[in-house]
Amino acid sequence: MVIEEIQNKIHTQIPMTKLMKLELKDLNETQLITTAPLDINVNDKGTAFGGSLNSITIISSWCMAYYLSKKFNLENPSIVIFKNETKFIRPVTKDIICHTLIPNEEEQNTLLSKINTKNSASIKIHSQIIENDKVCVDFYGVYVIKT
Amino acid sequence: MVIEEIQNKIHTQIPMTKLMKLELKDLNETQLITTAPLDINVNDKGTAFGGSLNSITIISSWCMAYYLSKKFNLENPSIVIFKNETKFIRPVTKDIICHTLIPNEEEQNTLLSKINTKNSASIKIHSQIIENDKVCVDFYGVYVIKT
Repeated sequence: MVIEEIQNKIHTQIPMTKLMKLELKDLNETQLITTAPLDINVNDKGTAFGGSLNSITIISSWCMAYYLSKKFNLENPSIVIFKNETKFIRPVTKDIICHTLIPNEEEQNTLLSKINTKNSASIKIHSQIIENDKVCVDFYGVYVIKT
Repeated sequence: MVIEEIQNKIHTQIPMTKLMKLELKDLNETQLITTAPLDINVNDKGTAFGGSLNSITIISSWCMAYYLSKKFNLENPSIVIFKNETKFIRPVTKDIICHTLIPNEEEQNTLLSKINTKNSASIKIHSQIIENDKVCVDFYGVYVIKT
């Protein structure tokens, strides 16, 4: 299963993802769900640490870019974050649940077309941390994929 | 010494800062220097993990806001990040060194004046991760301080 493979890759190669107990829970037709427990990611106010929240959105969106690279059968792609904008709208008071949207068909086609012609392309990926149906963290990250 | 007190506070109350081995190294007239080793904060490419880099800028700028709160003798301030913009300009290939600028006198005076009248104010804080005199990560965070 692809999410098990990706989780194994990041836990093995990016030690902080294992220390923060990040888990890839589900990948459905629309989104990737990732989680991390509050206890290890807590701050001085008893809510989730902003650094952990941003790390989870960054790596979840990275996993989405990696998933697309696998879907496109890219060999040994290099995927790096270029920039991000993150809004912390309300505190996260329970275990962290992050929703990362799969880019739509048009965005995926544009990405693949650019990679095929230039061996490099960027894509904007959207992750949200949601609690009780309310958005707590809203993240947009731009990732560069090179082959 | 104030940076020892702040480091002790975050290591005790924000476990991820201890796990990533974040250290407050120096606070001079212009900036706060924070560090973290590459080994625990590495990614799949052998450079620093974007989530760690963003965590270090987020907590370093938070520490700056906390330092200003102590300087202003605010009692039990609540300091939270509201939003940030981060650019990842080049990879970090060695141990991470983060420079967080002390806001200038005018910005500090505006902050204190708003807190004194409204018990709440926001301030923009600038952190950069620099390697070999080149900026690798450029971060602006907006923090809200409430008393």
